[in-house]
Amino acid sequence: MRFSSVRTAQGDTLAARRDGGLYDLRRVDPSLPDGVGPLVVGGPELMERAAKAAESATAAARLDESSARYRPVIERPGKIICIGRNYAAHAREGGAEPLDYPDVFMRGANSLVAHGESLVRPRCSDKFDYEGELAFVIGRRARHVSREDAYAVIAGYSVFNEGSVRDYQRKATQWTMGKNFDGTGGFGPDLVTPDELPAGAEGLRLTTTLNGRLMQDGNTRDFIFPVAQVVVILTEAMTLEPGDVVLTGTPAGVGYARNPPVFLKPGDVVEVTIETVGTLRNTVRDEA
Amino acid sequence: MRFSSVRTAQGDTLAARRDGGLYDLRRVDPSLPDGVGPLVVGGPELMERAAKAAESATAAARLDESSARYRPVIERPGKIICIGRNYAAHAREGGAEPLDYPDVFMRGANSLVAHGESLVRPRCSDKFDYEGELAFVIGRRARHVSREDAYAVIAGYSVFNEGSVRDYQRKATQWTMGKNFDGTGGFGPDLVTPDELPAGAEGLRLTTTLNGRLMQDGNTRDFIFPVAQVVVILTEAMTLEPGDVVLTGTPAGVGYARNPPVFLKPGDVVEVTIETVGTLRNTVRDEA
Repeated sequence: MRFSSVRTAQGDTLAARRDGGLYDLRRVDPSLPDGVGPLVVGGPELMERAAKAAESATAAARLDESSARYRPVIERPGKIICIGRNYAAHAREGGAEPLDYPDVFMRGANSLVAHGESLVRPRCSDKFDYEGELAFVIGRRARHVSREDAYAVIAGYSVFNEGSVRDYQRKATQWTMGKNFDGTGGFGPDLVTPDELPAGAEGLRLTTTLNGRLMQDGNTRDFIFPVAQVVVILTEAMTLEPGDVVLTGTPAGVGYARNPPVFLKPGDVVEVTIETVGTLRNTVRDEA
Repeated sequence: MRFSSVRTAQGDTLAARRDGGLYDLRRVDPSLPDGVGPLVVGGPELMERAAKAAESATAAARLDESSARYRPVIERPGKIICIGRNYAAHAREGGAEPLDYPDVFMRGANSLVAHGESLVRPRCSDKFDYEGELAFVIGRRARHVSREDAYAVIAGYSVFNEGSVRDYQRKATQWTMGKNFDGTGGFGPDLVTPDELPAGAEGLRLTTTLNGRLMQDGNTRDFIFPVAQVVVILTEAMTLEPGDVVLTGTPAGVGYARNPPVFLKPGDVVEVTIETVGTLRNTVRDEA
């Protein structure tokens, strides 16, 4: 199943993508929540009810995609946890050898941008860069999860553009400032449930294009820390909660490591595509 | 005014500290929220109403402190932003020269522990360390704030023990994992409104004791990045929102930098005292 958080003229709603169309699930079952965030927090039974609504939706519930706007898949995650340097070739293009423990940092919800909306290049920097990534969303409260149980805590997968302001990322030793500018992280369009994908979303091609030009071309089979291992590592330390979002790192080909470097400019179009998961499309604009 | 989030036999409530006593403000005005988080999110008018309730509270509203338990001042902050290496002597004891831009990282709400509760030493490490810090809480939505306007966005100040699992902090280049173990960050007891303190909480002595022994003895006048400058730096990049928490860094004297190193053990008592703001007291226990 593929769920989206959308905004229509009638208000916010939960939608499902099916047979090439987007369906308003609250027209089928008005008791469903108004987005993917509360859906996931509601737990597996609520997700099951939403899946039934999606299957039974008729043309009357179909949304006119030209008038519906996406919201970030989860608008206010409790945590957004980012795994850095999770593809060896990307670690090396940044001048670092892969480590045996991941580099972890966090983003805040202010950095999120929906599919179809504009990423914001900030006033104070022209070093704004893309990072195409696989995201996964937590569906069950979890601590000390074993590798065998790791997939059971995941509600679904999505696509993320972990936009980074490179000079601010490197002003000190910690990257957090460069990863937290308002409106720099694209997230969507859908939450794709695990049954639609290979276990752990492994073996999926991930590409990023900039104005149609191929910039990143990786595959999730090349994770240094695959999805299950990320769950084990994170839950050794902290409780993951429904609606938390985990970003799994970006493959080689980011803009700043190119010769000459490439940075995002107003009017640019960035598309991150993960096989079977979907395509996240964002334009770029300057901060107002 | 001094506000606390407490839990009584009758449920969660908002309390105020006055004349050496703790008063249940919902017994004075039942329309007030049940904690400091929603109070701050409610905005300055709601805080003004809570202050009036605190002033008019009589003995009938007084809480029996032996039965009331504290909750973290803000239980689910939208963001918890930490400033690292903000005292030159602490930067140097860690082997680093002070930088001209702060090291910033984030904690999640799972790491919070109330005043009077136990900090949790995790199973996987015996390198659990204290860091006494001044915290401030955001009271108004804010972006691109000037130094002159910085104090106006602050709802109040509090005390934090930014407990750190040192081996996990240093497993990779980013410190986030060592700063996010469940139950490692003491926060409280009160939110102290700015009118009770010097501007920017400057010139306040900050001490940390471990089982009564003085371990840290700093003063907020020694910030490399004072409170107003922290607000300017953060809001250059991101929107701060009501209820967001900012931790301002720890002075010299942390355990891991001592010779021999000192780490927290079950049964230890850690007290962080900031002049006029209050004393945060936590015991230490092993993870269950």
